[in-house]
Parts: sequence; C-alpha cells; structure tokens
Amino acid sequence: MALIVQKYGGTSVGNVERIENVAKKVIGYRAQGHDLVVVVSAMSGETDRLIGLAKAITPRPNPRELDVLISTGEQCTIALLCMALEKHGQPAKSYTGAQVSILTDSAFTKARIRSIDGDNIRADLAAGRVVVVAGFQGVDEDGNITTLGRGGSDTTGVAIAAALKADECQIFTDVDGVYTTDPRIEPRARRLDRITFEEMLEMASLGSKVLQIRAVEFAGKYNVPLRVLSTFEEGNGTLITLEEEQMEAALISGIAFSRDEAQITVLGVPDKPGVAFGILGSVSDANIEVDMIVQNIGRDGTTDFTFTVHRNDYERALEIVRAKAQSLDAREVRGDNKIVKLSLVGVGMRSHAGIASTMFQALAREGINIRMISTSEIKISVVVDERYLELGVRTLHEAFGLEQTAPA
Amino acid sequence: MALIVQKYGGTSVGNVERIENVAKKVIGYRAQGHDLVVVVSAMSGETDRLIGLAKAITPRPNPRELDVLISTGEQCTIALLCMALEKHGQPAKSYTGAQVSILTDSAFTKARIRSIDGDNIRADLAAGRVVVVAGFQGVDEDGNITTLGRGGSDTTGVAIAAALKADECQIFTDVDGVYTTDPRIEPRARRLDRITFEEMLEMASLGSKVLQIRAVEFAGKYNVPLRVLSTFEEGNGTLITLEEEQMEAALISGIAFSRDEAQITVLGVPDKPGVAFGILGSVSDANIEVDMIVQNIGRDGTTDFTFTVHRNDYERALEIVRAKAQSLDAREVRGDNKIVKLSLVGVGMRSHAGIASTMFQALAREGINIRMISTSEIKISVVVDERYLELGVRTLHEAFGLEQTAPA
Repeated sequence: MALIVQKYGGTSVGNVERIENVAKKVIGYRAQGHDLVVVVSAMSGETDRLIGLAKAITPRPNPRELDVLISTGEQCTIALLCMALEKHGQPAKSYTGAQVSILTDSAFTKARIRSIDGDNIRADLAAGRVVVVAGFQGVDEDGNITTLGRGGSDTTGVAIAAALKADECQIFTDVDGVYTTDPRIEPRARRLDRITFEEMLEMASLGSKVLQIRAVEFAGKYNVPLRVLSTFEEGNGTLITLEEEQMEAALISGIAFSRDEAQITVLGVPDKPGVAFGILGSVSDANIEVDMIVQNIGRDGTTDFTFTVHRNDYERALEIVRAKAQSLDAREVRGDNKIVKLSLVGVGMRSHAGIASTMFQALAREGINIRMISTSEIKISVVVDERYLELGVRTLHEAFGLEQTAPA
Repeated sequence: MALIVQKYGGTSVGNVERIENVAKKVIGYRAQGHDLVVVVSAMSGETDRLIGLAKAITPRPNPRELDVLISTGEQCTIALLCMALEKHGQPAKSYTGAQVSILTDSAFTKARIRSIDGDNIRADLAAGRVVVVAGFQGVDEDGNITTLGRGGSDTTGVAIAAALKADECQIFTDVDGVYTTDPRIEPRARRLDRITFEEMLEMASLGSKVLQIRAVEFAGKYNVPLRVLSTFEEGNGTLITLEEEQMEAALISGIAFSRDEAQITVLGVPDKPGVAFGILGSVSDANIEVDMIVQNIGRDGTTDFTFTVHRNDYERALEIVRAKAQSLDAREVRGDNKIVKLSLVGVGMRSHAGIASTMFQALAREGINIRMISTSEIKISVVVDERYLELGVRTLHEAFGLEQTAPA
C-alpha cells in the first residue's frame, strides 16, 4: 500500500470516453490498496480553444485575465473525472489550484510554485476518497488565479507528490516510457526501465519531449521517484530516480537530437576580453536564448566565435550579430539554419574513457562531418548538417549497442 | 455620478463580438462618470455544453462536481470581458464568486446567497477600475464552489447592488423592457416605464420570463431599484421599484399568461377535514409543484376539488391522484392538459372595484368559457381552454386600455 500521485495529460482525458477510461485505471490502482491523488490537464484542444477566444479579442490579453480564462480547462476535467469515479462507486473530490491551495508567485501565465498545503488532501485520502487536483494552476497571495505555463501539470503532479511525500509520481502520457532514441528514426530503439534525473534532463532538453524539464528538475530536487507510462497500454514505463549502483552498467542511456537548431559564426573577431559578452549580450538583450557556445583559441590576434539558437530566432539573431560585428571589427558573420544537434547522454560516461572518440569515429565512418562539439559531464553534443540527422542517430544507436537489452 | 451594477445575460455575451459590444457599452457609462460593477453570465450555449459533458458521463452527476464544472462558464466570460475593456483602455479586474467572496449555503446547484464581501470591489472602484463579477456562482464556508441555479446571474447582480448600496441594478437582456403583455400575441402591447416589485413578481411567475423571480424578490426586499433594458437597442427600459404615488393612476399593468398548465379535478370527494391534504400531500410528496387550487363549497356531503400543475408533471400527478382518490372514496378524477392561464396584474386593482367583473364580461363577450378563477390582492387569474389564449390576451389588453400611453 503506497501513496501514489498520478498525472494524466490532455490526450489521456481528451474526451468523455477517455475520462471514463482514466477513472477505471484509477479504480484499478485503488483496488490494489493504494491511496491516490490524480492531477489532470485540460482536455486536449481546450486550452488552445480558450486562448483562441482571448486572441480573437486582443493579440495581447491581460495576463491575469488570461490565467482566469485558461484555468477553466483543468477545472472542467477535475469535475468530470470525479463524476466518472463516483459513477463507478469510488468516492472522489476535486480541488482547483486555489482550493488545495497551491500557492505561487504572481508571474501570471508562468508562475512558480512556492508552497502546497496538503492538509485537506490528506484528510480526504484518510476518508477513502480519491483526490483529483487541477494541474497547471495555482493562486497567489492575493487570491489571484495563476497558471504555471504550458506543461505545468507535470510540475503540479511532482510538487504535490513532494508535499505529500508520496511514494511515486506517475506521469501518464501517450508514450509508454523513455526510449534510447526516437523509435520513428531508429525502430530498434529500446524502452529504458530506469534513467536518472540528470539524464532525463538532458534527454528532455534535447528534444525528447516526454516530460517537462521543470517537472524533472523539481522531482530531482525533492527526490520524488518519477515514472513515465502510457495511459493507453499496459506496462511499467520508465522510472526516473537518483543514480543507483546498478546503473553503472549502462554506459549510454540514449541518443537525443534537436532539429530546431541554427548556427551563427563570427569570424576574425579581435581576440581580447569582452568579445564574447559583446556578441552574446546583444543577443540575450533581444530575449533570444543561446544554446551551444564554442570559441577556440585565437590565432594572429583574432578568434572565431560560434553559437547556436532556436531556428525560429535565427533571422533576428543574425541581424543583431551582423550589426554588432561591425562595431567589434569582426571580419565576417556566417550563419546556417540547416543544422541539427545529436547528443549522447549517459551518467555512465563519467567513469568511462573513450566515449567521445567512439562517437566521433562512428560518425566519421559514415562520412558525417562534425561542425561543432560541446560536452558536459553526462553528455556529448555535436552539430551536423541536417541531412545527416537520421543516419547519425542510427549510427550512434548501433555504435553504443543501445538496441540490446541492458545487462542484468 | 452613480454606482451602477449591470448584468449582461448569456445572449448579450454570446460571442466575442458581443463581448466587445458590451465592453463598449460599459465604457460609455464610465464616460458619463459612473462607477460600474458588471455581472455576466456564461456565453449562451456554454452551460448547456458543460451539462452535456456531465450527462455523457452519468445521468446523475455529483452536485458538488457539477458546480465545479458549470461555474467555469461565467469564469470564461469575466476574463474575456476584462480583456476587451483593457483593449479599449479601460482598466478592469475580474472576480469569480469565490474571489468576491459571495458566500452561500452548501446547497449545490441551487445555493442561496448568505453574504457578500464588498471590500475588494470598493477598493477597485476607487482605483478607477471596472469590476467584472461572475454571475450565478458563489462559495460555501468550506471553500466549495456553488452555483445559484439557472438564472442565478440576475440574483448575483441584485445581491451585489444591495451589498454595495448601488444606485441602480440594470439587467441587460434581449428585450427592451417589461410589456403590458407579450407583443408576439398582442402587437399593440406597450412597454411599461415603471412597474412595482410586486407586479413584476406576478408577471414573472406567470410567464413573462424577463427576470428571475428570486432576483425580483431580492431587489424588493433590499429596495434595490431594478431596471430591465436591451443590450442591443438604445432606450431606458423598465424601472422596477417600490410603489409610488404616481403609480395609482395605472389600474392594470399587464396581462400575463402561461401555456404550461394542466388541470386535475377530483369529483365527489367526501366533504370532510383532511381531504385537501389527502390529495395534495401525495402530490407534493412526489415533488410536483401545485399552482392554483380551487375548492368550492360542498353539496350533498361531497365536494369537487381542482388544482393545476405544470404540464410536464401532468401524467405523473394524474396517476398519483387516481391512486389516492380510491382511498378517499372519490367519485371520479378528471384531467385536462389543454388549458392555459390568463392573469390580470396591477397594484391599482387593490383600490378599484369592478375589475373582476370587467374581466369576466370581456371574456364572455368573446365566448371564452372560464374554467377556474383564482385571485390575489394584485392579480386575477383565470384558466381557459388553450385555444383561447391569444384571443383572451388581446381581449383583456383592449378591455383595460393597455395599448394607450399611461396617463401623465
């Protein structure tokens, strides 16, 4: 008998039949003797419909009012799920973010959770009820409704699990776990039974959009065991936890990739202090997020400086950097938005040498030219021409034997 | 410069364009120097859509959860209206029922307002904001969301006006006021400039569905001047107030009618104490509301007993009464669901004799047979065959000169 927090996303509660299906799943877990808190998103499409109404009035809706509006999406789902649970004989009670209360700051549309009062929920659980909580929303000190930003329901789930010291937070979604890479590119991709918070963060930020980054960070910080599993299929999914002894065996957990990359290079910039800031400061002032940054050692008093941005920001970033390059006496600015990033992720690489060379060798064997390299403790990322994305992923997947079952 | 509470119904805020139109109207009133609190309903069709979702899950949804669900309708409207107001430069702030707070009892789906805290609203008004409040909803002592039942938004408007001691509560709807009778039946029907709370109650309960009865009762109790006017047309509408001297002039305010009537007669029931209770007790036990009740003096130790119910309850009521009649030794039970009720309403009739005879004479002249009569201080109702509805309304409208402009 455990206390489990489950989170069901928009697709899982996308219509009345699916909500009934979720109710049956929840009742199944209850039958195993578990206490359950269920966090739900808005029915799929509902948040977009509401935002559409707002945008039909004004392109820049007042953020406080936008939160009042879109928070109704989850409020509908909690009520419908409770009705479905009660229909099948399971007492249930719904809570809006304000009713819990999930106290946040006042940053409307992107609020951060400050604290959660779990007392009411605990009383309901003790009374044998399933507690259903609206994800994605909270309330600030002045009683204003806030939302946590897209995907915030995952964060709600983890935060409630942390507040209640739950045994596990289960994120139900439309995939059955975290894979070694995207199965649409490498059919031999394998579902991972376990992965560490750190690895998951790298996988998530690199494009494996299974879980929200903030939720994984939160889970790692409070050590809430997090499990990703499918609403629609049976299975144990992937458990995301702290690093454990047995994990050492797995060298590499997976191959992440991102198609949304663009590269900008400033050539022949005088090699003196303040150059990096001179270039990147103007970019970040424009609210453009920079991902990889590479600067090699200088030659002849000048150096080359390269960074990547999201492809949507490419044109704007290029314009800014071109303007800036003149004042910095740079020789030339080049850009390329036909590039992708491939990343090897694994806590195992910390204690193993030769990972990078195996990676580079495998790519070279297929004639894939590496244009940029960046490394961290648990990942190695390379930028390559976008036409090599699929080939690169499959090559690395095979080179590190990811298709095989992990050693016992 | 006055403090005005305005309420806009579902049709008035039925889509984004109409919400913008309401925003413009509100800003127009602001420009006249008034402080404004605006109460809104859900966009038309929205409450039915939400109830449809609930009914798709279960025919008997948990009432607490039903209120959580349907209260989202008004929550959407308050946010959208605030966005529209701000777009046009008018600072505004939305309040859900819970945020106000509008404290109610815990009778989910039909809660009654207990108290309203006007402090936050007053502070916003003082800061130059238009305050937009979700109609139809409140919160109980335990923080549960409640709703006031269909049409509860009118009640919210009046209750807030009473709490804030507003100068007027304006109910915007799709008609431009209260008429002497339904203009679809009598084209010469005339809009009333004023009517008393009592008359309005009789008109409303008799089928002139312009205002919710509870709202009128509430307004009368707290003496909140209530004005009914059109969202879509200019005009001063109809003011509903306490009786004033000048009103004496108007003998009759209007002709109300109801098509939803059915009549049940128990013939030859022993004329002894407890008979009325014996018959009506079993009907009201079945939660069937009884409207008119007529019992004439008995003859030969028996009496005839007649009452009317809503047409929807007719079959069920007839069945109950037939079963009961046997145990009461009644001779026969007859029913008719092809009847209608016509009512003459007017505070003036209190101080004038001969109203009833004028009414009966006018109907007789057209060959309309009266099947039942019931009177109160300010109304006379008759039941007639349903085919005489239109003729009866027009006959009475003319007999009392209602098409003419009221005397100055």
